[in-house]
Amino acid sequence: MADSGPKSRIILQQCLSARLQTQPKTVNSEAKFVEIGPGLIVYVCFLKGATEDILDKIVKSITTAKLSEIEEDGKRVSVLDQPGDILIIPQATLGGVLKGKVMQYHRNIDKETGLKLYSKFVELCGSFVMDNSKSKECDKTVKFGTYGNRQVFNCVTNGPYSHVLEI
Amino acid sequence: MADSGPKSRIILQQCLSARLQTQPKTVNSEAKFVEIGPGLIVYVCFLKGATEDILDKIVKSITTAKLSEIEEDGKRVSVLDQPGDILIIPQATLGGVLKGKVMQYHRNIDKETGLKLYSKFVELCGSFVMDNSKSKECDKTVKFGTYGNRQVFNCVTNGPYSHVLEI
Repeated sequence: MADSGPKSRIILQQCLSARLQTQPKTVNSEAKFVEIGPGLIVYVCFLKGATEDILDKIVKSITTAKLSEIEEDGKRVSVLDQPGDILIIPQATLGGVLKGKVMQYHRNIDKETGLKLYSKFVELCGSFVMDNSKSKECDKTVKFGTYGNRQVFNCVTNGPYSHVLEI
Repeated sequence: MADSGPKSRIILQQCLSARLQTQPKTVNSEAKFVEIGPGLIVYVCFLKGATEDILDKIVKSITTAKLSEIEEDGKRVSVLDQPGDILIIPQATLGGVLKGKVMQYHRNIDKETGLKLYSKFVELCGSFVMDNSKSKECDKTVKFGTYGNRQVFNCVTNGPYSHVLEI
């Protein structure tokens, strides 16, 4: 299955704003957060067999898919054309398959490779957005969560407009 | 594909609280909202070929899957054992398949049948929770969005712990 099935599972949701914890509170420091304004939340999970080869396709898909609203109930444009922010959330649980009452994660990639792919993905996504003149002019940003951390966050949306991608 | 593939796509996310608009503001009345406390957000989309026969399996899966935390980093229990609230959000976009830059929704069930299944699903989910003594004792509730409406909402989570079900 690992060879023939998808190598990643992604959820896309539109938001008006979102705030994600990137570092929990410790004895010595307050918790750290990143925030975005109107844009796209990207939950990403890499599955067995994923390699760097698929990252370009994932980044192109999420940044060019016409899912963003510029006027209420108007036509949808890409997050690059909106232009909007992007918040990437690592979400290994997306690889889960329900067996009876228990989720199994046998399809997930090993953590070490997952972290490498995630770091590369975040970097590539940032380059794509920075190479887009509209995003750059309007000071749009790519923020991202810490791989392996608990993803403490809140979001506000006027319609999550949720989509699942399997690439 | 409609015959052999899944008949529904569902996203499950854990939350600490969530608030969903069920009726937008009009000239004569304020917008209406429903709210839940700690529990489960269920985004649901019915696909072509879905019938009432699958509803029981969906409701059992989402209410008995061990995804809810009772202590931080402790073992996971079902939303019935948590016990937690449930917020159901109709989300037809989940049936989307990305073709190039455009989402296509050919797999989605027709709106009329979708509404019937959604109404029955909400009802069945409510019965399951009300039949559970723990949920009843702790005054847990099932809230739900308005089919076909824009799902204006916000949520707070200490880890969305996102899962996708295809049933």
